[in-house]
Amino acid sequence: MSLAIVNTYILTCKGGAPPITNGAVGIEENNIVFVGKNSEIDPNGYERIIDGSGHVTMPGLVDAHIHTGLSLLRGAAQDVPEIEWMNKALGPFARHMNDEDHLASSKLAVLEGMRAGTTTFAEFSRDVEHLIDEVYVPFKARVAAAETINEIVGRKEELYELEPSKKSLKKNERLFKKYQGDMVEPFYGPQALDMVTQETLRRIKERAGVHHRKIQMHVAQGGRERKQVETRYGTSTVKKLDELGLLKENLVAAHCHGAVAEERKMMAEKGVKMVGCPSSIGMIDGVVPPIKSFLDHGGKAALGTDQTPGNGAHNLFREMRTISLLTKCEEKDPTVLPAWDALNLATKGGSEVLGLNHKIGTLEEGKKADLITVDLKKLNMTPTVTKPFKNFIPNLVYSSTGSEVDNVVINGKLVMENGEFVDIDEEALKKEVEQRAQNVFKRAEEDWLEADAHMVKYLKEGHI
Amino acid sequence: MSLAIVNTYILTCKGGAPPITNGAVGIEENNIVFVGKNSEIDPNGYERIIDGSGHVTMPGLVDAHIHTGLSLLRGAAQDVPEIEWMNKALGPFARHMNDEDHLASSKLAVLEGMRAGTTTFAEFSRDVEHLIDEVYVPFKARVAAAETINEIVGRKEELYELEPSKKSLKKNERLFKKYQGDMVEPFYGPQALDMVTQETLRRIKERAGVHHRKIQMHVAQGGRERKQVETRYGTSTVKKLDELGLLKENLVAAHCHGAVAEERKMMAEKGVKMVGCPSSIGMIDGVVPPIKSFLDHGGKAALGTDQTPGNGAHNLFREMRTISLLTKCEEKDPTVLPAWDALNLATKGGSEVLGLNHKIGTLEEGKKADLITVDLKKLNMTPTVTKPFKNFIPNLVYSSTGSEVDNVVINGKLVMENGEFVDIDEEALKKEVEQRAQNVFKRAEEDWLEADAHMVKYLKEGHI
Repeated sequence: MSLAIVNTYILTCKGGAPPITNGAVGIEENNIVFVGKNSEIDPNGYERIIDGSGHVTMPGLVDAHIHTGLSLLRGAAQDVPEIEWMNKALGPFARHMNDEDHLASSKLAVLEGMRAGTTTFAEFSRDVEHLIDEVYVPFKARVAAAETINEIVGRKEELYELEPSKKSLKKNERLFKKYQGDMVEPFYGPQALDMVTQETLRRIKERAGVHHRKIQMHVAQGGRERKQVETRYGTSTVKKLDELGLLKENLVAAHCHGAVAEERKMMAEKGVKMVGCPSSIGMIDGVVPPIKSFLDHGGKAALGTDQTPGNGAHNLFREMRTISLLTKCEEKDPTVLPAWDALNLATKGGSEVLGLNHKIGTLEEGKKADLITVDLKKLNMTPTVTKPFKNFIPNLVYSSTGSEVDNVVINGKLVMENGEFVDIDEEALKKEVEQRAQNVFKRAEEDWLEADAHMVKYLKEGHI
Repeated sequence: MSLAIVNTYILTCKGGAPPITNGAVGIEENNIVFVGKNSEIDPNGYERIIDGSGHVTMPGLVDAHIHTGLSLLRGAAQDVPEIEWMNKALGPFARHMNDEDHLASSKLAVLEGMRAGTTTFAEFSRDVEHLIDEVYVPFKARVAAAETINEIVGRKEELYELEPSKKSLKKNERLFKKYQGDMVEPFYGPQALDMVTQETLRRIKERAGVHHRKIQMHVAQGGRERKQVETRYGTSTVKKLDELGLLKENLVAAHCHGAVAEERKMMAEKGVKMVGCPSSIGMIDGVVPPIKSFLDHGGKAALGTDQTPGNGAHNLFREMRTISLLTKCEEKDPTVLPAWDALNLATKGGSEVLGLNHKIGTLEEGKKADLITVDLKKLNMTPTVTKPFKNFIPNLVYSSTGSEVDNVVINGKLVMENGEFVDIDEEALKKEVEQRAQNVFKRAEEDWLEADAHMVKYLKEGHI
């Protein structure tokens, strides 16, 4: 199919290039073939024309860290101490989810993200192959997929028991053979230094080096990890990863808030990429992801939405505003992380972090056609002025809710048109999710009460 | 008219009362006449029935501090140093706005707020009578209106020149006589201690005491004010207000981030009410409003959206999440300001701060019918579970965008139905605002370039 969006404001996100105020984008098959002035495109050359007036056309957003499999549990775990979050608050529900529940969760999260303009998802999951085949491929979404490798075989009082799992690694490596097309980008997915043996990490490092493969990993995510790593190795996560030779350009490190300043500097200087998840880590840990510090050291950084319970949503417009606002308040400086830097994190920066910037992240001729239109005619985006400057750039970050996205194109295919998914039955999915959620919460109720996290207290106090 | 919303989840926001899962709300004329179980209402007794299934019905939200007159300037001043914001970044545009521009701005801000569920606006404006008559009354929105009293007559290098203005005070006092109905609640509006003479403040205090009137005032809003007050009075804002006898239950103090801990404690203990504007003050100052500290001292607090440029939007759902997340990160504690406390700030708390809690702020029989329905069937609110707890309470704060509000009732009148304003031509207003904004930015361009705030640098660097 060929498609042109005409009469539109264009934000190429290339950096250095000013926004185009009366522009057009031309798409043929999977590729962008024209980005420029409206007067220079020949609309007769395209099968479909979308009128982009009053809209900004911009790159599809990159969610550089997401676990989609838990969104059935939206609203199930927040306002609790960090130490409780995973095992006491979320765990009792998560343990009662079956494979179909996870699959429905994943579909919900991906649709929610797409509706708010996300076109690339860096999924981090067990059995990610299943999600690729059952969710990402049918939904026509681009995915950077990491298979979770977790080698915990038991939990002793002080230290997790780990054992190298060749099976997990093999499962992960199958991805690289199976998916060699444009839409799936496989990653190694060792979960975290406290959950994977150093034998396996060394092996991943070697094989990733030989085959030019990328790794995504949770790095320095806080107190629980720190304690495990200190007990096992007598050092910090970042120092141990450095010793293992993992701090290289092919590593995407999620979170990093447990790393001290000099460690962040070292990671950035060695070319490690960082993903921060401001809503998730803010909600769960009360911590601001150190994205600014990573950027200050010349590092590349991106945004992620992590998982639904905790964060609450999969909406990168929200994450752009959130990281900017949280960082301004942490630094007590309203000039830090300005709108264009926040936009970059979710577009070009995201593509660079995932090593996909040759394909996506900006609107340029020759790149894959991943793009969205945002309706500037909503009350909360009104008015739009272009002189002396384009106010829609700050407004995209500071005024939008994400619900202004109305068209979504991925790899040249129109997947959402005028706010409606083209090939996906959203209503049926929502019904399925509602039913499954009722059942999961019912099955889990007793275990949840027994685990007695703060949420139980909140229930007893009549708050929820 | 009589109206019933049936088959709905109900959040009364009364505190202590658990949410109702299969409920109904009955409205006759301006009042709530029934809140309870669906099975106990007689739908035949109502002219209009709204099916509230999959929706939560809750009190309309209270925006306890807003200046609506600048929303034509959305996106015009952010990412700049605080010291520049008002005079160098915003000022050059604001000075080129005429009365009609301000009026159109005000309409835009009020509509935007109503669309996101706000039913009461604490407007703080010069010539507020004009806004009441031309915006709030025709739009059927509830308003707590303060006429700005600003007695600056000149700016010397070190200290503003002030002169008591009987005219301003008289204009303010006219409100109390003119508006004695349900929909308009007049307030005194001395702008701030650095902008009003102590003579006038003493007079306001006396007259407010005699006539049982309320005062809204900006208190301790930062460096510029602190310097003026120290130079003029040799003390702090809060100490001087205490000396003037203003720290009483009828004072609503906006912002307060410049007050030190013991001053906040004193204000809370004396019954002063506080309004925090998290998005605005976070964006403009890089500061988190001290709402938690005020609540910890037993004070009453509420949320406001302040003004469009800076904040970016008038959306109290966004403010609920923002104050919770910012406070969690500032305190490094994810348990602080949980969802129900955030909801309280925008409902019951808001009504208490404005002294309107006998009328609004909760869903109770006998109160005025200010209420909204929120669609829980949107992707980002799915799923809804009610057992073992109601996940829609956290989801209203942590997952919503505000665009899920679909029905808005104010004083018994349905002003927005299914996402469409009933009596207001939204499209015509947006067109007018677009045109006016183009003209204001054009008229102001030269002055703006000359003022040379950071935004000009950003333009030259190609960012905006």
